[in-house]
Amino acid sequence: MFTSRPIGFVSSPYKDASEVPKGLGAKHDADGVLKILAEFEPGLTDIEGFSHLIVIWAFDRSPKIELRGDDLLGTPPSDNRPHGVFATRSPRRPNPIGLTTVELLRREGVELSVRGVDMLDGTPILDIKPYLSNIPSEKLRRGWLAEAEARQK
Amino acid sequence: MFTSRPIGFVSSPYKDASEVPKGLGAKHDADGVLKILAEFEPGLTDIEGFSHLIVIWAFDRSPKIELRGDDLLGTPPSDNRPHGVFATRSPRRPNPIGLTTVELLRREGVELSVRGVDMLDGTPILDIKPYLSNIPSEKLRRGWLAEAEARQK
Repeated sequence: MFTSRPIGFVSSPYKDASEVPKGLGAKHDADGVLKILAEFEPGLTDIEGFSHLIVIWAFDRSPKIELRGDDLLGTPPSDNRPHGVFATRSPRRPNPIGLTTVELLRREGVELSVRGVDMLDGTPILDIKPYLSNIPSEKLRRGWLAEAEARQK
Repeated sequence: MFTSRPIGFVSSPYKDASEVPKGLGAKHDADGVLKILAEFEPGLTDIEGFSHLIVIWAFDRSPKIELRGDDLLGTPPSDNRPHGVFATRSPRRPNPIGLTTVELLRREGVELSVRGVDMLDGTPILDIKPYLSNIPSEKLRRGWLAEAEARQK
């Protein structure tokens, strides 16, 4: 396996996890900047052509504990029932990897201005990939999240 | 940062990178199995409700080299021009992290049968997240990939 290292850091309006919008209907439209380390600038070549990017990042402020048994279940802010971590976006995961799709507004050198950040300020970025395609919406089922939304109506 | 560890391994029909369909119009409809380690089974609770999953995995058979300068550019199988690694899905990335969206066909205990694998057999899985929503297609721009497709027509 490998030891992860930052390719850059997120500049975000959120200084604390309590500030990040959560739960059903939460809007993720905050603007932020992905500041990439200068040594990786050639890797950004032609990224401007993509409207959306997948940002893979590290939950660097989640408690580092071994998750076992019931620790692998969590009750997300969008529901009042527990679900397995792999069926949620919980920050407490065996590998503390987060994923956010953002809209790319503009690039200035190593700074990517984006919309839709939900990471904390200073979050280490591990990778960026272009968002290439959607799943046809008629094929998409959203499990407990759709059920929680239906119950709230 | 953190040292990644497998939560399971991919069972795939592809034994060698040359067998994975690549390039424009490549179809990713191969069936495979995500075999999750028994200790993480509680984390799969309720995952059956989702039609699609985002699998984050490790490029464990890519050469482990420091990428710098022009190493951060690559010519993907779908184009004849070089692009930055962060604008491509190249396996040669500063953090060797791969991402694949798969369709979940069924779950049997710790085995998730899925469609759409493009990983090699035995690939270590780092994380699984539910696929929750699409980007509206009228907002999606696909940069050099759309240009390469247009040139091929």
